[in-house]
Amino acid sequence: MSEYFNRHRPMLDDALDALQARGYWTPFPEVPSGKIYGETAREDGAAAFAALLGRKFDIPGHPEDRRLGAELSPFGLELDIAYPAASVESLIDTAQAASARLSAASAELRVGACLEALVRLNRMSFTMANAVMHTTGQAFAMAFQAGGPHAQDRALEAVAMAWDEMNRFAGSARWEKPQGKAAPITLEKQWSVVPAGISVAICCNTFPTWNSYPGIFASIATGNPVIIKPHPSAILPLALSVRVLREVFAEAGLPAGAILLAVDEPGAEITKDLAVHPAVKLIDYTGSGAFGDWLRENATQAQIFSEEAGVNTVTIAESDDFSGMCSNLAFSLALYSGQMCTAPQNIFIPKDGIETDQGHKSFDEVAGALASAIDELLCDPARAAGICGAIANPATLERVDQARSRGRIFRDSSALAEGRTATPLLLSVEDGDPASEEEWFGPIAFLIPVADAATGIDRAADLARRKGAITAAIYDLDEARIQHAVTAFGAAGVNLSINLTGNIFVNQSAAFSDFHVTGANPAGNASLTDSVFVASRFRRVMWRRPAAA
Amino acid sequence: MSEYFNRHRPMLDDALDALQARGYWTPFPEVPSGKIYGETAREDGAAAFAALLGRKFDIPGHPEDRRLGAELSPFGLELDIAYPAASVESLIDTAQAASARLSAASAELRVGACLEALVRLNRMSFTMANAVMHTTGQAFAMAFQAGGPHAQDRALEAVAMAWDEMNRFAGSARWEKPQGKAAPITLEKQWSVVPAGISVAICCNTFPTWNSYPGIFASIATGNPVIIKPHPSAILPLALSVRVLREVFAEAGLPAGAILLAVDEPGAEITKDLAVHPAVKLIDYTGSGAFGDWLRENATQAQIFSEEAGVNTVTIAESDDFSGMCSNLAFSLALYSGQMCTAPQNIFIPKDGIETDQGHKSFDEVAGALASAIDELLCDPARAAGICGAIANPATLERVDQARSRGRIFRDSSALAEGRTATPLLLSVEDGDPASEEEWFGPIAFLIPVADAATGIDRAADLARRKGAITAAIYDLDEARIQHAVTAFGAAGVNLSINLTGNIFVNQSAAFSDFHVTGANPAGNASLTDSVFVASRFRRVMWRRPAAA
Repeated sequence: MSEYFNRHRPMLDDALDALQARGYWTPFPEVPSGKIYGETAREDGAAAFAALLGRKFDIPGHPEDRRLGAELSPFGLELDIAYPAASVESLIDTAQAASARLSAASAELRVGACLEALVRLNRMSFTMANAVMHTTGQAFAMAFQAGGPHAQDRALEAVAMAWDEMNRFAGSARWEKPQGKAAPITLEKQWSVVPAGISVAICCNTFPTWNSYPGIFASIATGNPVIIKPHPSAILPLALSVRVLREVFAEAGLPAGAILLAVDEPGAEITKDLAVHPAVKLIDYTGSGAFGDWLRENATQAQIFSEEAGVNTVTIAESDDFSGMCSNLAFSLALYSGQMCTAPQNIFIPKDGIETDQGHKSFDEVAGALASAIDELLCDPARAAGICGAIANPATLERVDQARSRGRIFRDSSALAEGRTATPLLLSVEDGDPASEEEWFGPIAFLIPVADAATGIDRAADLARRKGAITAAIYDLDEARIQHAVTAFGAAGVNLSINLTGNIFVNQSAAFSDFHVTGANPAGNASLTDSVFVASRFRRVMWRRPAAA
Repeated sequence: MSEYFNRHRPMLDDALDALQARGYWTPFPEVPSGKIYGETAREDGAAAFAALLGRKFDIPGHPEDRRLGAELSPFGLELDIAYPAASVESLIDTAQAASARLSAASAELRVGACLEALVRLNRMSFTMANAVMHTTGQAFAMAFQAGGPHAQDRALEAVAMAWDEMNRFAGSARWEKPQGKAAPITLEKQWSVVPAGISVAICCNTFPTWNSYPGIFASIATGNPVIIKPHPSAILPLALSVRVLREVFAEAGLPAGAILLAVDEPGAEITKDLAVHPAVKLIDYTGSGAFGDWLRENATQAQIFSEEAGVNTVTIAESDDFSGMCSNLAFSLALYSGQMCTAPQNIFIPKDGIETDQGHKSFDEVAGALASAIDELLCDPARAAGICGAIANPATLERVDQARSRGRIFRDSSALAEGRTATPLLLSVEDGDPASEEEWFGPIAFLIPVADAATGIDRAADLARRKGAITAAIYDLDEARIQHAVTAFGAAGVNLSINLTGNIFVNQSAAFSDFHVTGANPAGNASLTDSVFVASRFRRVMWRRPAAA
């Protein structure tokens, strides 16, 4: 029964080609257009989302002790959706009961179900956009892209890698060892995939689908039941995903109990109990380094795939498109109010200024131009709302407040017209200021004067190595110095973007091409999606016997 | 400078094909024959070995604080070789100094050097055979095979996997994202391999090369300097290997400091200090579960690839070749006096006996036949010496003594004519006897009566799951029960050999075909050689920039 697999095989093959070639490719259009998704898709999505509000969220057959849910949109809307919630033991028991059937199913069956689920999730991208928007605070367009097609891309990437890895070696072989003049020894051998065990996905508030889909789909594809633990403020996108996956599983003859939602309440999280359960062998985690450390110390029975905190940097050395550079950085700083693991924070600028196509620019002039570029980007209120979105967590606003006193303000943060919002705060701090050595998640950027550009590169690379970083950017025209940067950031394990201007930004990571997080510095050990990310989720076991004559 | 790579490219390509197809293949003949290795190879090897005795072992340029070495052959010979020994800090400093050059070298250069070193090691297999024989106690033929060609095979397998993994994705790409009617965004991207850091190989006494080469070669090939920590009783095989690798490295323009030997003394081991050093990021370890636990608790800065203890089993249900079965098992039990991680220990036999081509055999008759088969195998003293070899560690003899009192002896262990030796001890213990729940490394096998064959399978699989196992064997004619065994041992993560008779044994693991250790039970987390084993040793880091128009 691999009807889904056969149906989606061409998409899988294209994904496999894309993975290898690492050029641009996607089967899931990122433009929220009625021409692509159907003329009424936008309205249908809005209606479907509205129909979920103020109701019990139904997941047929899901374990349920009680109902929980208190999501509140950063844009003000109270979602008032009650999700089925179950105890850790009940979730584990259900997952374990599903485990043998999931493990025994063919790779085709599991991968086919994953692909079908992704196609269905893609069709409901407008519904998902509303769900992501009103749980994360992302503006609609971003919620559509990051919560829908881009997340689906990342999931497909993981499924394709899982397929590739499960089929990397022959599944059976005839082993014939010569014995001189005697007849050869001939063995028949066969290998099967043995999944690691129960997989737990600990999801974040800001990118509930994009950050969790790779681990979830990689685990399912390789035969591990998955318990999805959403952030209490961003349950809906994952509840929708769980429901689709379970529907497809049931239709495919796979156990729906292998896909579970672990809803809890703020202050009464079940994350730790789940994470340390002996049956849990895989944990995908997006969140703080402090909780990452807790997991490493306590969930020692499991393999942990993490994305944690870091300090992303920009080093400005020279530019032949000064206004293009400033506009580009302004967008990177303003997008989703900096609530991205890829958003820049520390901007290193030579204290004596830089050379540009507009002549020499002093440190203050560069800082001022960046501030102005942000102002210009956000001067239209509708556009500002569409770029900044809202602030997911009130603590981020407090952090902006705290940051204000830490340096000289070049651009202050302010609220937009609607929702819990904050535009970028731009302030300068001295090189080595302790504030600049930690992640300040949100719309906060430090401008840091350094002796010269080479010093900036070294500071940025050193910070990545010590504190972690997911992105680094440089603007420079000196090829020798760019090569030095390539080497320095490479050794620090951080991907480097060079001279980005126009409509491509350092905080964007493209599925099938960019490996998101390298795993080579403290910002995380999991790279989306490399071999280790999928190959660690299962093992191969063989039987061998003399071949029939 | 990839002369070596070009020279050995055909061998690498064949290895890559073999890895995928998993049939029989080797470029390194296992027969210690003058026709293959040169007419005087045997004598030359013996002479080369003799020339090493009683001397300082020279490793040009190797860090050296003092000289250490007190190897004593289990066959009685005192080696009296003094190796260069250096402090942990000195070894780490040297490795770190070599690190940048090794990392910056091309994959071709590193892989080419590995291949050249293997070809040179192959040529000196007779020398290596003597070195392995007189440090491990393996008989000459086995020392030749396991210490030479088979170890070289495993190393080549690891190098080929490393090459495959480093080249799994495009190293550069042109990423072109359509922008509707506007010009596409076009980025140039390039990825490079970033090695994890310093790699430490903690080697064992019994298979100094076979067990350590995969990790050593996988680490070097992917750019990690390696510090090789031999067991104080089995230094010479690794000292020879280090010298060859450093010679080739120097010739290839690679830093010889990337290959280091960490010699220490019994009672003053430097293993722990090495393992917890912050610069050490990879540890390959073969040894006890207790020290494995210590590493996991203390060397948390490193990834650990382990092969530890386990309880290997045989389940006897039925046989249509009773004497063939008994002969086969006799050899498996006697080979190197059971000092193999793959040797069977627990033999489950239905308490009411089994059906065979020789009619019904009671439990005692099966036990007696196994004992007789061992006696017959070892009745010729020369053949006995050639199969059993000698006992590497005196503690193994004590263990045999302790075991004697634990059950009813069907065949007692005894010494052979020369060296520290012990033939297999065969004794029956009750099902569930605590003795049968632990590994008794050495020539000790427990015959365990069980209710029936299915119970035996379940006991054996359960033991593998709980205590670990590297091999399992079954003799059965009932296909339904064999399928049950396939499922049960599969779920327990242990490779299963079915109905082996003749010249193929459960304790043999073939490179390029059998994954040695599955990683799916407590007997170890590293599988030789799967994707995780090599892919975990490096990361990919990218730079991207707008493509030149």
